[in-house]
Amino acid sequence: MKKVQLGPKTLLYPMPAFLIGANVGGKPNFMTAAWSSIVCSTPPTLTVALQHHRYTLRGIKENGVFSVNVPSVDLVKETDYCGIVSGQKEDKVSACAFKVFYGVLKTAPMIEQCPVNLECKLMHTLHLGSHALLVGQIEEVHVSHECLVDGEPDVLKVNPLIYCTGEKKAYYAFGRRVADAFSIGQEVKKRGR
Amino acid sequence: MKKVQLGPKTLLYPMPAFLIGANVGGKPNFMTAAWSSIVCSTPPTLTVALQHHRYTLRGIKENGVFSVNVPSVDLVKETDYCGIVSGQKEDKVSACAFKVFYGVLKTAPMIEQCPVNLECKLMHTLHLGSHALLVGQIEEVHVSHECLVDGEPDVLKVNPLIYCTGEKKAYYAFGRRVADAFSIGQEVKKRGR
Repeated sequence: MKKVQLGPKTLLYPMPAFLIGANVGGKPNFMTAAWSSIVCSTPPTLTVALQHHRYTLRGIKENGVFSVNVPSVDLVKETDYCGIVSGQKEDKVSACAFKVFYGVLKTAPMIEQCPVNLECKLMHTLHLGSHALLVGQIEEVHVSHECLVDGEPDVLKVNPLIYCTGEKKAYYAFGRRVADAFSIGQEVKKRGR
Repeated sequence: MKKVQLGPKTLLYPMPAFLIGANVGGKPNFMTAAWSSIVCSTPPTLTVALQHHRYTLRGIKENGVFSVNVPSVDLVKETDYCGIVSGQKEDKVSACAFKVFYGVLKTAPMIEQCPVNLECKLMHTLHLGSHALLVGQIEEVHVSHECLVDGEPDVLKVNPLIYCTGEKKAYYAFGRRVADAFSIGQEVKKRGR
């Protein structure tokens, strides 16, 4: 199998498309971010990487809190818009008609229309070059009632966006369920013995 | 829209399913990780979060390098297997029939069958609780020739796995292309003015 070297670049699949929320000067603002991940289970912790000049980052520093909102496929226009414009120039909440709510952290704005919302307390900031890596402890998770089945979130009801990097940057939807995790690998385990 | 509080938990969609590679005692080993993300463009940097006791982590500390391999849907069994068993007990490379190759960093093993492979130099390690957060600088990206179209990786040819957390943990494939990024949001921009 021939491999081609592309040089050092930020190529990974899949990436998420999250809306990161913060109050800036007391007003809610949201920006799109694909570079975000869970990083610890105990305590529940996530990271998000933002460029240093971001208006949202100013708000996160002001309040020491932020939110991560998971948009569904039907919010693709709003999600993309929040990655194109700066809250310094436009009122994104108004343009997107987002209904904003607050939770336990009081100052981390969340979007009602997004089916999953995480409130985070900023724990660490790493300066990595072009980006600041924010490490946030997850303090509460909110899920829209209609996305729960037997009290658990159902990914098909959440219907999350997938961001795809590369030359032709695009959003995708979840496709077919391939296999159960921590299960189908048992076949290799048997084969290997 | 009614929101239900689930308490602090590691709930985000989508997550990737990567195979993290390291030589342990001079032998290549791979483990599955969903908690990984790009975190910086200049220099190209990524993170991966691993539990402290991981055999692979031992190898990463030994060599100061690791790889991130993006498996395609047809490697779902091998991907799941590498998350179920420890390299301390089983030879995963042999069980999965992985063809291993090395690149510029010399000691970061990569899987030929995975369409995308990133070689990383370990820059920082953060101890966050149950997990260690590894920050790695991307030194080279290798892509299988048959996944390139006009010299650029094509996500549909890469056909990456998506990991889905929750009660029913599972792997999914990419679904329909929803919209172009940095483009469809212009409609909201116009609407907002």
